[in-house]
Amino acid sequence: MKASILVIGDELLGGRCRDTNSGWLCSSCASFGIEVLETRCGPDDPGWISRAISEMTIGCDLLLVTGGLGPTPDDLTREGLSEFLSDPLVVDDEAASWIESFFADADLEMGPSQSRLTMRPSTATCYRNHVGTAPAILSEQENTAIWLLPGPPRELHDAWQRHVSEWLSRRGVSGQSVKPVTVRCFGLIEASMEERLGSLASRSNRPLAGTRISGGEFHLHLEPCGADQSTMDACVAAAREKLKPYDFGLDSQSLSSVIGELLRARGERLSTAESCTSGLISSAMVDIPGSSEWFSGGWIVYSNEMKHSCLGVPEDLLASVGAVSREVVEALARNAIFNSGSQWSIAVSGIAGPDGGTPEKPVGTVWIACHGPGMEWQRRFRFRGDRATVRQRATAASLQLLRWCLDGHDPMTPMSWDEPS
Amino acid sequence: MKASILVIGDELLGGRCRDTNSGWLCSSCASFGIEVLETRCGPDDPGWISRAISEMTIGCDLLLVTGGLGPTPDDLTREGLSEFLSDPLVVDDEAASWIESFFADADLEMGPSQSRLTMRPSTATCYRNHVGTAPAILSEQENTAIWLLPGPPRELHDAWQRHVSEWLSRRGVSGQSVKPVTVRCFGLIEASMEERLGSLASRSNRPLAGTRISGGEFHLHLEPCGADQSTMDACVAAAREKLKPYDFGLDSQSLSSVIGELLRARGERLSTAESCTSGLISSAMVDIPGSSEWFSGGWIVYSNEMKHSCLGVPEDLLASVGAVSREVVEALARNAIFNSGSQWSIAVSGIAGPDGGTPEKPVGTVWIACHGPGMEWQRRFRFRGDRATVRQRATAASLQLLRWCLDGHDPMTPMSWDEPS
Repeated sequence: MKASILVIGDELLGGRCRDTNSGWLCSSCASFGIEVLETRCGPDDPGWISRAISEMTIGCDLLLVTGGLGPTPDDLTREGLSEFLSDPLVVDDEAASWIESFFADADLEMGPSQSRLTMRPSTATCYRNHVGTAPAILSEQENTAIWLLPGPPRELHDAWQRHVSEWLSRRGVSGQSVKPVTVRCFGLIEASMEERLGSLASRSNRPLAGTRISGGEFHLHLEPCGADQSTMDACVAAAREKLKPYDFGLDSQSLSSVIGELLRARGERLSTAESCTSGLISSAMVDIPGSSEWFSGGWIVYSNEMKHSCLGVPEDLLASVGAVSREVVEALARNAIFNSGSQWSIAVSGIAGPDGGTPEKPVGTVWIACHGPGMEWQRRFRFRGDRATVRQRATAASLQLLRWCLDGHDPMTPMSWDEPS
Repeated sequence: MKASILVIGDELLGGRCRDTNSGWLCSSCASFGIEVLETRCGPDDPGWISRAISEMTIGCDLLLVTGGLGPTPDDLTREGLSEFLSDPLVVDDEAASWIESFFADADLEMGPSQSRLTMRPSTATCYRNHVGTAPAILSEQENTAIWLLPGPPRELHDAWQRHVSEWLSRRGVSGQSVKPVTVRCFGLIEASMEERLGSLASRSNRPLAGTRISGGEFHLHLEPCGADQSTMDACVAAAREKLKPYDFGLDSQSLSSVIGELLRARGERLSTAESCTSGLISSAMVDIPGSSEWFSGGWIVYSNEMKHSCLGVPEDLLASVGAVSREVVEALARNAIFNSGSQWSIAVSGIAGPDGGTPEKPVGTVWIACHGPGMEWQRRFRFRGDRATVRQRATAASLQLLRWCLDGHDPMTPMSWDEPS
C-alpha cells in the first residue's frame, strides 16, 4: 500500500508552530509496512487544498490529511475536500449528537461555530473523536481512500489507533509482527554511548540501529528491516549489555516509571528536597498514574530560609559552605526522610544560571544526594548549557542515581558530567 | 517575496528520522517577511525531485531545497536539479579545494565518494560550507531562484545565515520592520475566545488573525500581511480589550514571567502548596531567571500525611471533608504563607486520574486557593482530559488566578472549567 500525507495550517507555513504530525504519520505508516510517497504542508485555503488532494491522490492508495478541521473560520479542510469531490457539505446527525454530548458532559455551552464540526461531504463518513470534538472523515474513492484527521496530536493519535488502524486491518494491512525497539539510556554523552555500541551500530546490521539524544537521554532505536523476532530480541539484549548500567528502559518506559515499579515492588516510598530543579523531580514522579502508592511528596527549598525553616539546615552551615555543597544536600536528604517518614529521598541544590556562578562553583554546578535504607550518596556534577538544560540534566541524573541505588548498580558509576568534589 | 520549501530524504518518509528543517525554514522566512506557499517532503529520487521542482517553482520567487547533498549514493538532489534544468553536472574547482582543505584540516583522508560533493549544474554557483563539506548551490532562473542547502541542521543554519540572508538583503529583502505579534490568553475554550474576537478574526482583516490552542493556552497570532506599525498596534490593543482579562502577555511572555514581573514590582514573594500539580507550578516559577527574588519555594503535599505534618492540615478535617476540598486548600494556602513568610501563596488539591474519582468528586475535580495581602480566594474546577492535561490546566488556572489577584482583575472572573462548589 502507498500513502501520501497532507498537513494543513497557516500557522505551520508562517513558522509560528512546528508540524509534528507528518513525522508521526510517517512512522505510523512504516509500522504498518505502508510506503509514504510524499508529504506536503499547505495553507488554510480550500482551493489550494482541493488542488493538492487531486495531485496527491494520483498513484496513491491512501491520502492522510490532518489539520484545519476545527470550528473556527480559518479551518477549511472540509471545504477543500468538498470542492475536490464536487460534493456539498451536509450535517451528519450522528456527529452532531456526539458533539452535543461532549459539550453536555463538559457542562459547556455549544456556540454557533461548533455546528461546523458536524459537516461532511454528503458521500463521506464521520468517525467519532473520543478525545476532542472534530470527527475524522473518510471518503472512499475508486482508487484512493481519503482520511481527514484532526490536527491536535492527541486527537490525531487516537483517531489513527481507533479508526484508521481498524480500517487498515479490515483491508488485510496490519502492524508489523516484529516491532521496532528503543533502548533508553542516561548518563554518558552520545559519542561515548556510540563507542560502546561498536559494530552493533553499523549501517549494514539488521535490525538497523539509529541513535539520537532527546532531553539529554540517549535513545538507541532498532528497526527490524526484515530481522525476525529472535534476531531482534538477541540484538536488544546485546545492546543493553553494552550500554549497562546506563540503559534504564525500553520504548515508553521513563526513569520515573521504572523508579515507580522498583519502589512499588519494595513497598517503599520516596520524598524529595529540590532547590534548583524546583519541582521537576516531584512532577516527573506524579506523571506516573498511581504514584501516590510510592511517592510521599517533598519540599521546594528554593530560598535559604526554606532550607533552614522546613528541613532544618543550620544557618551557620549555609553561611560557611554555601547552599550548593555536599553538606547541605546531605542534610536536606536526611531530614526529608526524617520529616516525611519515607524510606528514600533525593535532594538537589545547584546553580542553574545564567547568574550566580563563582570561580569555585560555576554555573551548572549541582550537588545531588540520594539516601535510602543503609545508604547515603552525594555526588557533584557540572552540567553545560542554559538554565533549562542544567535543570533537566540535574533531574535525570538524580533519577538515574536513585535507580542505580534501588536496582543494585554502583551509584558511583561515572557519568559524563561528574566533577571532582 | 513568495517561497516554497522542499525537503528530501527517504529516512524522513520512512519515519526513521523527523524533519525539523522545513519548520526552521518557515520561521526563518517569516522573519524576513517572506510568505511560504507550501512545503513538501519527498524521496531521494532524481525524477521525483525534478518534477517537484518544476511544480513548485510556479508562482514562487524562491525555492529552498534541503537534504540529499551528501556524498553517499542515495544523495541525489544535485542530479534532480540537473535533470530539471537539463544542465549537466560539472566539477566546481573552487569547491574541490574547499573540501580538500576541510579534510586536511580535520586530518581525515578524502574518499573517492567525496568527489560527488564538488559537482554542480554548469550554470549554477557553489557557496562554501563552513561547518561541514557539502557546498550550498544556487541556480537563478528567470522568475525563481533555487537554493540547494545541506540537510544537517547546523550546516543548513550556517548556510542560511551566511549565504541566503546575504543574497536576500542584496535584493532588498531584510528582516521585517513590522513584526508579527502573538497575544497569549488562558481561561476560556477556543470557541468562546473566538466569539469575543468577532470581526477581528475575519479572513479579510489586516493584520491577518490566526488562532490556536497550545498547552491549554489560547494564542491569537497577528501577521502584518502589509499592515503598517500603527495599524498593527491598534489591532493588538483592540484584541486585548476584547480578550480581557484572559490575555496575560505577548509573544514569549508566559504566565510565570508575567507573575514574576508583578511580584518583583511589588517587592513581594510567593510560596506554593501543591498536591495534584506536584511541582508543575514551582517548576514554572523557577523556569524564569532571577526567580529567587520573588519565589520562596513550597511544599509538595502529595500524601495526606504531608498535608498534615508539613502544613498543619488537621487530620479530622482531611477525614471529614477530604483532601480535595475548599477547607483543605484554604488551610494549605494560609499555612504556606505562615510557614514561608511570603506574602502570596497558591494551593492546589485535585484528582488527576485515571483513578480516584467519585460521583461527588469525579476525576478532573481540582480546588485552587490563592491568598495574598487582605485576600483569600478559593475556586473549584473540573478539567477534562487525561492525567497530564488535568495537571497542566490546573497549573495554568492557578497562575491566571494569581495574576488576576496581583493585577487588580476580579479573581472570580469565569473560566470554562468552573464548577459550582
